Amino acid sequence: MRDVSIIGIGQTKVGEHWDKSLRQLATEAILAALSEARLERADALYVGNMLSGKISGQEHIAASIADFGGLRGIEAVKVEAAESSGAAALRLGYMAVASGLMDTVIVCGVEKMSDAVSSATASAALALAVDSDYEALHGLSLAALNALLMRRYMHEYGVKREDLSPFTVNAHRNAAGNPYAMFPRPVTTEAFMKAPMIADPVSLMDSAPLADGAAAVVLCPGDRARQFSAGAVRIAASAVATDSLAIHDRRDPLFLEGAYLSAQRAYQQAEVGSADMDLFEVHDAFTITAALSLEACGFAQRGQGVRLAQEGEIAMDGRIPICTMGGLKARGNPVGATGVYQIVELVEQLRGQAGLNQVKGARLGMAQSIGGTGGTVITHILEAP
Amino acid sequence: MRDVSIIGIGQTKVGEHWDKSLRQLATEAILAALSEARLERADALYVGNMLSGKISGQEHIAASIADFGGLRGIEAVKVEAAESSGAAALRLGYMAVASGLMDTVIVCGVEKMSDAVSSATASAALALAVDSDYEALHGLSLAALNALLMRRYMHEYGVKREDLSPFTVNAHRNAAGNPYAMFPRPVTTEAFMKAPMIADPVSLMDSAPLADGAAAVVLCPGDRARQFSAGAVRIAASAVATDSLAIHDRRDPLFLEGAYLSAQRAYQQAEVGSADMDLFEVHDAFTITAALSLEACGFAQRGQGVRLAQEGEIAMDGRIPICTMGGLKARGNPVGATGVYQIVELVEQLRGQAGLNQVKGARLGMAQSIGGTGGTVITHILEAP
Repeated sequence: MRDVSIIGIGQTKVGEHWDKSLRQLATEAILAALSEARLERADALYVGNMLSGKISGQEHIAASIADFGGLRGIEAVKVEAAESSGAAALRLGYMAVASGLMDTVIVCGVEKMSDAVSSATASAALALAVDSDYEALHGLSLAALNALLMRRYMHEYGVKREDLSPFTVNAHRNAAGNPYAMFPRPVTTEAFMKAPMIADPVSLMDSAPLADGAAAVVLCPGDRARQFSAGAVRIAASAVATDSLAIHDRRDPLFLEGAYLSAQRAYQQAEVGSADMDLFEVHDAFTITAALSLEACGFAQRGQGVRLAQEGEIAMDGRIPICTMGGLKARGNPVGATGVYQIVELVEQLRGQAGLNQVKGARLGMAQSIGGTGGTVITHILEAP
Repeated sequence: MRDVSIIGIGQTKVGEHWDKSLRQLATEAILAALSEARLERADALYVGNMLSGKISGQEHIAASIADFGGLRGIEAVKVEAAESSGAAALRLGYMAVASGLMDTVIVCGVEKMSDAVSSATASAALALAVDSDYEALHGLSLAALNALLMRRYMHEYGVKREDLSPFTVNAHRNAAGNPYAMFPRPVTTEAFMKAPMIADPVSLMDSAPLADGAAAVVLCPGDRARQFSAGAVRIAASAVATDSLAIHDRRDPLFLEGAYLSAQRAYQQAEVGSADMDLFEVHDAFTITAALSLEACGFAQRGQGVRLAQEGEIAMDGRIPICTMGGLKARGNPVGATGVYQIVELVEQLRGQAGLNQVKGARLGMAQSIGGTGGTVITHILEAP
């Protein structure tokens, strides 16, 4: 099995791109990543996307994007694992290079949420990630399910709504330094508390905004990486784990077993532990998700994820900086693209190119992408050049 | 890179399964394949499916199927490449084992077309495979696009409608020996000529029936295959190629460049040529697709694919038997599952277990799965134990 490195990154600004199609967004990110790697083509393209069939009226997008991006003929396949689709595409690209079958691979995550005719349509589309028989059919949207989890967490651990605000405040503070972020401006705890409810106790400020965007990375074998780039970042671990889709089928709704398994597999592959991480790109689709992910991955004891945030340990100079470029909450959440955005941001950090948001001396970073309420969890660990 | 073998196969009958959900169908096929391989679990599950989001109101099905099949926690991801989704999942499973990352992998293709509320819904869903901006939006369904191709073929090569009937007659003759086929009965040329039109000149008898079904295979490294199964079949080649989605963007509409590239890559990997194949599972979603695929893969000269069928060379005792268990036309076409059904059937042939339909002395076989009108083409070559 070969070592795999990231030799190029590309991303579009996250936001509402009314003037661009899904394949245009993907092409922009891909060409930027190829250009950084000083390549014109690659051996394969793996696309992460969740909702183009439902929202944009187009499946079969990997071949379509390959053609649009000037890569006609190339091996191209789409991967879907709900909101973790982008991370799943990276997993696939990693296997392709590790196997020796491919020398250069493009991984692209893309989503075009603004093609949805209304926010109700977008919300219904997102509910395709939860159990259709046991949850969605009964009106449980993704936000509603996270409201149940948050309410239960508040009850079990004596936590108040405002105790979760540090996740949002931290994400927005960091987004201010990210030119690709959807909401690059700070928010206050007061603004957090005044935000309209989506599904009590989940408010607009607990919930990451759906958006359009595309991000891409180029992979090659580790021993050839320096040919292409002085700043090649090594993929030290890549791991996927699953759990039941329906929350009621889980042993303990407040423990993300998929996140635990996925992180443990990644730690084992990289031969490291949570204490070795210099930063962690968390899947903060909801504030409660961030807390549960920190706990499942070993950064906090059960029920202490929120305390970690309250004590400032998730800030840029804290014990484990998270959402260093704004996270899902403030960079924006282009669903199936988000997993690749996390990787692009991690690469910027490990190259020392994160500008105002640079985590000093970052050598080892982790990104975790979560599908549904934890049905699929994908963890990657990257290592500085 | 490690050699990869197939050590277990499973399939449900193809048809309208009103009483079973998508994950039930998938679970049946997976448990059958695991049982054949004498395994209870595997390291990963890759699911090929095209339309569950559109038709069944459920994405994120890989985790859902893993849970339903008693495999909770396992790595599980869905792969989509239109009608070639099942073959794309096999490609992914092949890479996972070849890389050394996984020792045992389940590949499952599944589709539940009967969840569509009407045949118009099913047809609209299938149109997600063609270019939405340039084709579907203008009313060009998959059948309509194939009608354009068939009409052009008839014009260019002086072929009549009835000249394509041998493809259908052959497929139905073979399906009679397949207990899993949807239409296991012979049809006559007269019946072919009397069939109602779908999109002139494509009639019901040129067009494979949409259906429900699931098929699965279990993979392991070649050097460990005999531990699990005396009848392990080797994957000698696995190749994906793409073309533009829209037909008008191709250099020549009557030459499937994706099929050509995909086959060439497979021949190169297996170090064989078309003349070495003992049988070929063709993607006969439409009779014209079968003709174009035979030509692009080197079994017939340009314009001679139809003649090959007319001269009986595609029959069980012909030069290159195709659709040996009924093909898409008579076994039925559960879209995203079809690519895995082809593989299951090829394994039966290469193990000498194809019963009445056994191709005598079959040692080397090929399967080709096509997405859209040729936007993605995936070719696998398998070798007898």
